[in-house]
Amino acid sequence: MDQPLVLALDAMGGDRAPGMVLKGLNIARRRYPDARYILFGDSDKVEPALKKFPKLKLKCEVRHTTQIISADDKPSTALRRAQDSSMRKAIDSVRNGEAAGIVSAGNTGALMAIAKIVLKMVNGIDRPAIAGVFPSLRGESVTLDLGANIECSSENLVQFAIMGAAFARIVLGIKTPLVGLLNVGTEDLKGNESVKEASQILKMSDESLPFDFTGFVEGDDIGPGTVDVFVTDGFTGNIALKTAEGTAKFYSDVLKYAFRRSIFSKLGYLLAKPALSAIKKRVDPRSYNGALFVGLNGVVVKSHGGTDAKGFANAVGVAIDMIQGGFNNEIIENLKKVNVQKKNNAMDNNK
Amino acid sequence: MDQPLVLALDAMGGDRAPGMVLKGLNIARRRYPDARYILFGDSDKVEPALKKFPKLKLKCEVRHTTQIISADDKPSTALRRAQDSSMRKAIDSVRNGEAAGIVSAGNTGALMAIAKIVLKMVNGIDRPAIAGVFPSLRGESVTLDLGANIECSSENLVQFAIMGAAFARIVLGIKTPLVGLLNVGTEDLKGNESVKEASQILKMSDESLPFDFTGFVEGDDIGPGTVDVFVTDGFTGNIALKTAEGTAKFYSDVLKYAFRRSIFSKLGYLLAKPALSAIKKRVDPRSYNGALFVGLNGVVVKSHGGTDAKGFANAVGVAIDMIQGGFNNEIIENLKKVNVQKKNNAMDNNK
Repeated sequence: MDQPLVLALDAMGGDRAPGMVLKGLNIARRRYPDARYILFGDSDKVEPALKKFPKLKLKCEVRHTTQIISADDKPSTALRRAQDSSMRKAIDSVRNGEAAGIVSAGNTGALMAIAKIVLKMVNGIDRPAIAGVFPSLRGESVTLDLGANIECSSENLVQFAIMGAAFARIVLGIKTPLVGLLNVGTEDLKGNESVKEASQILKMSDESLPFDFTGFVEGDDIGPGTVDVFVTDGFTGNIALKTAEGTAKFYSDVLKYAFRRSIFSKLGYLLAKPALSAIKKRVDPRSYNGALFVGLNGVVVKSHGGTDAKGFANAVGVAIDMIQGGFNNEIIENLKKVNVQKKNNAMDNNK
Repeated sequence: MDQPLVLALDAMGGDRAPGMVLKGLNIARRRYPDARYILFGDSDKVEPALKKFPKLKLKCEVRHTTQIISADDKPSTALRRAQDSSMRKAIDSVRNGEAAGIVSAGNTGALMAIAKIVLKMVNGIDRPAIAGVFPSLRGESVTLDLGANIECSSENLVQFAIMGAAFARIVLGIKTPLVGLLNVGTEDLKGNESVKEASQILKMSDESLPFDFTGFVEGDDIGPGTVDVFVTDGFTGNIALKTAEGTAKFYSDVLKYAFRRSIFSKLGYLLAKPALSAIKKRVDPRSYNGALFVGLNGVVVKSHGGTDAKGFANAVGVAIDMIQGGFNNEIIENLKKVNVQKKNNAMDNNK
């Protein structure tokens, strides 16, 4: 590329910002030596912190902002009253073309609300979605929507499928991703009207799209990772994935108690510790730290507020991969293929 | 009670029926010495199998049936063409008052379809629901609906809350159960219209009902067991709980691999084995084997098709607890309290 890739950073977002942001960025810098960063935040805090990373400093430009959106701020308040916040200015820089994407570990609701209003949706996408990457027995898979849209039409679900598949291709590196639609059974007759219609549209478009639509999948396909992309509405997706998180926590808590039960189990734990640490790494949420707001004009990655530098670096990596891989262009191209197919089909039906 | 409690059994349902059914029933017999059973099935198979359990035989009556509904039969086919099946006849015996409830390890869809048509709904309940009991860090909790109703109105959700609370009181022995409504956040503004309205109705009725409605809860409250009853629509409930099952399986698979990694981890496993077996027991699905079809005129418990005798005995125990505890009477009483409250409120609003 002739133009260097530029990423905007909300340097004040997250529990340990700006220190954690810069430390994470410094890890990402080693992986992506060509990227450049615009850091939005209180320059009295960002500049001194940046001095600790002289090599990173060369890649960064600091822009002073006077406001910070806190974790407790309502999205509507943040949208109206924090025009000079680090988050808002970072999003503005994507809007005016200075940066191709933004990473923030700040307030999720505010980030979604501001990004939606300022950046607007990609042509052909009705609503943005929140996507997340989760570990599975087969590797990792992406699930969307995780809560941006409480009620979804079949068109929304089809758009989510296209966005999820683009993510799996570009970021997870899966050439022909398998895409499944979450339902309460795998037979055609199961489910509500939205999932039934979405399944039909995707089946009709399957030949022209660069992914394989496998039809309906069930909740217990997520753990084994039967498909690479799980598509669902935001209500179900949010509750299902939080249920999975709670279950994982329950199991690891029960496991901890078990190892503390006796001197033998404690000894057993010590012997098995390297293997158990390997598990922990395998299911480490820090590797899957970026929640993605997809469907917007610009790449928007939300890092967990409580993340550490390693997790933040991964979120930055996801954003850079999406920009370099032409995420939004792929979505626009594939949306055309579905629409053409649908139109053709409608014409066939009218014959 | 003057009249002995009578339970109908689908002796042909389940992978290892009728042997597993009788073995399970024999375990239940020791726990509930006063109960009597009507066994529906092929008498050429049931009678010889029953001879192995002479004490159980004294409590049983065998009724010969000529048909068996298989796991692959469609509910509609089972409903129309299997009038002399063990499952149908067992349900019929509840309808005509010979038995107070039925336990079957057979085809779930057929059981629901036949029970719904033959038994019909309890007065005031619009639709039956599937409820399940799950282990949590705090003990166990009941979740409903797990898939009987794809779309649910606020009234349906309120009815589920009442049925779930009655189950928690009668079977789990929790005097004043905590009831929560699954949503994508805990603020009043979150969620779809059904959950928002249901929450308002339950809040208004909370004082007169024998449970505590805590408002909205999230998916990650299920693992820790923040409340005793989780209420949700069948689409979300089915996907969320299957996601949890898949996650649990994923964790236990990864754990197994970890212990096999080296000679040290294998040794560690041996030392920690008693503690790990204790975990397994804690999260053993066999203890939570009964899926309940609630809201029907008669107690209907579905045991997992692949269950063993211990699991089947637990399903029988759940059915007997529900009958002895007056499950349906409690529902009818509590439904009145909500209706009165709603009416009063409507009158207040019209003043």
